[in-house]
Amino acid sequence: MRHHDLVVLGAGSGNAVIDDRFADLDVAVVEEGPFGGTCLNRGCIPSKMLAHTADVADTVREAGRFGVDATLDGVRWAAVRDRVFGRLDQEAADGERARRRSGSVTVHRGRARFTGERTLVVEGDEGEVRFSAEQVVVAVGSRPGVPPPVRDSGLPYETSDTVMRLPAPPRHLAVLGGGYIAAELAQVFHSAGSRITVVEKEQTLLSPQDESVSEAYTRIARSRFDVRTGVALSRLEGEPGRLRLLLDDGSTVEADTLLVAVGRTPNSDTIGADRAGIALHEDGRVVVDAQQRTTAPGVFALGDVCTAVPLKHVANREAQVVAHNLLHPGDLIATSHRAVPAAVFTRPQIAQVGRTERECREEGLNYRTATRRYADVAYGWALEDTTGFCKVIADPATGRLLGAHILGPQASTLIQPLVIAMSLGIDATTLAGTPYWIHPALTEVVANALLDLDL
Amino acid sequence: MRHHDLVVLGAGSGNAVIDDRFADLDVAVVEEGPFGGTCLNRGCIPSKMLAHTADVADTVREAGRFGVDATLDGVRWAAVRDRVFGRLDQEAADGERARRRSGSVTVHRGRARFTGERTLVVEGDEGEVRFSAEQVVVAVGSRPGVPPPVRDSGLPYETSDTVMRLPAPPRHLAVLGGGYIAAELAQVFHSAGSRITVVEKEQTLLSPQDESVSEAYTRIARSRFDVRTGVALSRLEGEPGRLRLLLDDGSTVEADTLLVAVGRTPNSDTIGADRAGIALHEDGRVVVDAQQRTTAPGVFALGDVCTAVPLKHVANREAQVVAHNLLHPGDLIATSHRAVPAAVFTRPQIAQVGRTERECREEGLNYRTATRRYADVAYGWALEDTTGFCKVIADPATGRLLGAHILGPQASTLIQPLVIAMSLGIDATTLAGTPYWIHPALTEVVANALLDLDL
Repeated sequence: MRHHDLVVLGAGSGNAVIDDRFADLDVAVVEEGPFGGTCLNRGCIPSKMLAHTADVADTVREAGRFGVDATLDGVRWAAVRDRVFGRLDQEAADGERARRRSGSVTVHRGRARFTGERTLVVEGDEGEVRFSAEQVVVAVGSRPGVPPPVRDSGLPYETSDTVMRLPAPPRHLAVLGGGYIAAELAQVFHSAGSRITVVEKEQTLLSPQDESVSEAYTRIARSRFDVRTGVALSRLEGEPGRLRLLLDDGSTVEADTLLVAVGRTPNSDTIGADRAGIALHEDGRVVVDAQQRTTAPGVFALGDVCTAVPLKHVANREAQVVAHNLLHPGDLIATSHRAVPAAVFTRPQIAQVGRTERECREEGLNYRTATRRYADVAYGWALEDTTGFCKVIADPATGRLLGAHILGPQASTLIQPLVIAMSLGIDATTLAGTPYWIHPALTEVVANALLDLDL
Repeated sequence: MRHHDLVVLGAGSGNAVIDDRFADLDVAVVEEGPFGGTCLNRGCIPSKMLAHTADVADTVREAGRFGVDATLDGVRWAAVRDRVFGRLDQEAADGERARRRSGSVTVHRGRARFTGERTLVVEGDEGEVRFSAEQVVVAVGSRPGVPPPVRDSGLPYETSDTVMRLPAPPRHLAVLGGGYIAAELAQVFHSAGSRITVVEKEQTLLSPQDESVSEAYTRIARSRFDVRTGVALSRLEGEPGRLRLLLDDGSTVEADTLLVAVGRTPNSDTIGADRAGIALHEDGRVVVDAQQRTTAPGVFALGDVCTAVPLKHVANREAQVVAHNLLHPGDLIATSHRAVPAAVFTRPQIAQVGRTERECREEGLNYRTATRRYADVAYGWALEDTTGFCKVIADPATGRLLGAHILGPQASTLIQPLVIAMSLGIDATTLAGTPYWIHPALTEVVANALLDLDL
């Protein structure tokens, strides 16, 4: 049985662990899917490429209100899809080829399972391969969760893994779930011409967001989609292409295609964690400490399989920490999960960092808020924006930001100064008043919200 | 002769000086044009509103490469213009009305001229009004400069003051000048359907920018416009609507309309500066110290009439300083002109802060540069971007940024984290590595450029 210095399970963010510093070690990577993981192949990147394309189509649709007469002749979905995945599939193949060429890394194709402490078996194209390792990194990610009424129905459904590669947009897409993945994909297919019905058990869509954002987004969504909130799926009936969703309020939704986007499940159940001595949280996540160590000596984990914040930029940071800690067992570093921002690439975009106002209330914090609308600044006039805003929350005792929430064009870019301030402890008054803010750039909405804080 | 506590000449940025803290003082404002000055009426704001509209039209034109089939049926220029100026003219009128209603501020309509130390005459609608003041603020701005060959020709020409209000886009617009105003307006009219010829005496357009930016922008401009660089206008001939520009290399340009955008001239020549004891620089700018004091006691100046950095966000900052200094003669503060960013709202946008690489070379600085292309990050893939980049320049001794230059979509927003870092002394490594940067937001191009610096 071959003994590697390091085995990495998962060639998504796990692949980023292995850099030049590992060149002298005997390293193996195990991956059953394409290289690049969820992000590159079925997550962040294709969804953003599709979201921007949707934005282009919707810009055409709405050009008239700027005095620009335009006709949308059609979205060539198959061309869009092929452009996106033609590029990404190539990236994934290039990533694998580069790894295989590097010489120092062995690539095993298949699914890995622990057979004991740091001993593994891979079942895949090459049959069954067994090996052991000095150190192991578990980075096997997560997958879309599928609720029992869907699973038990035996009827076909899509998830974010599959829906972006459909040959054509559905005529009528039912979206189960109202989180960020549901919101982004609903917009993509709405823009491509699908009729959309969203079914969400909470009272608003994007309910973990600040109330101001989830309420504003839900209003916007209702203007485009048939949005059913406060209801759950009881049963899925019908036949392929003619699905009927029975909801728990007695109503029904008929659709040709169902997208399930109700959350993600860590893939820890595939790795034989108990054999390895790797403890799991109740929700299936691998237990790790701040240094990304699992409960099994010599076994680290990172990314969706373990993290409390399942976002690619967090997985990247965790990969950096794991790489360091693998190489410096006597000088371990910890991952910081402070001031982690997140964005939703809907139309308009949404971005957030830190606490929601509800969280501030629930924690009993003393806080101040200020909100500026895009329509209050010159660039918002240029955009003819009517719904966008930036809301900031700060601690009056220190002047420090507790959270920030933006809904509107470029939100994912506009949030960054607020992330920097929270991360580096820059108070709101200094942030607003010391650096210049370009007039009339859209950043003024952030500066003005900060200036409005009663600190 | 009435004696005011404070007289402000110019209701552009000057108007921002007067806030609630002046409520108990006898204040007068003198303005010959609409309230809001250049920025609101004929500068930053209408040009950005038109630039975004141009972006919408160009997005329609280029939608096909995303797989979105669209037809641009036409840009309804008159509707665009009326939307923009309908709003801005109303804002200007509202600004004046609010001032007049406030009670504590007298508004004089007309042009003010000093007759002696802090004594003035206004010639305007109300005839000739004479008054004196305890303190005076000179904020009379600047105007487009017009070179002799144009002025002497007696032929009609447009400037940024007038061109945005034309009843229809010119068939063929000749743009004299290759600076940021020329660049923005060329794009606006190109998008509206005009054929464009740009005449610039330097070898590249936007020549004060970092070479990487001016070269890239010039290349982009050449793909859209007839760009003549390294040539100057010798003579303007022809007749209204059939102009002929004779250039100093013997070539000619025929056009129905000429836009002159070769720089701006401070309006200091209109105020009788010598009578007031206000010294001027050779280029016409009012001499001020860091506290915005002119050489005449009790007379401050701000904005384009005096500043070394004629940008609205700088004028706003200078107005804040002047307001403070008027009220606290014993506790003067200075204006910081450190890390002043600027943006050009072309397609794509351009933004900069700090030094160009050429300036670093000329100052003999030790520096490192790093450049990341938009095409290197996932959101750049979404944009299908082929020309954008972020270039950063840093001091290897301190890790601090010396300058940053971005060409590409959202540049005016993307620059802000770099402005903050330069302003607050955050080194490049900390900026890149401590805060999170959302994946896959466009901000990654900035983070990755920073990470590429060899520090």
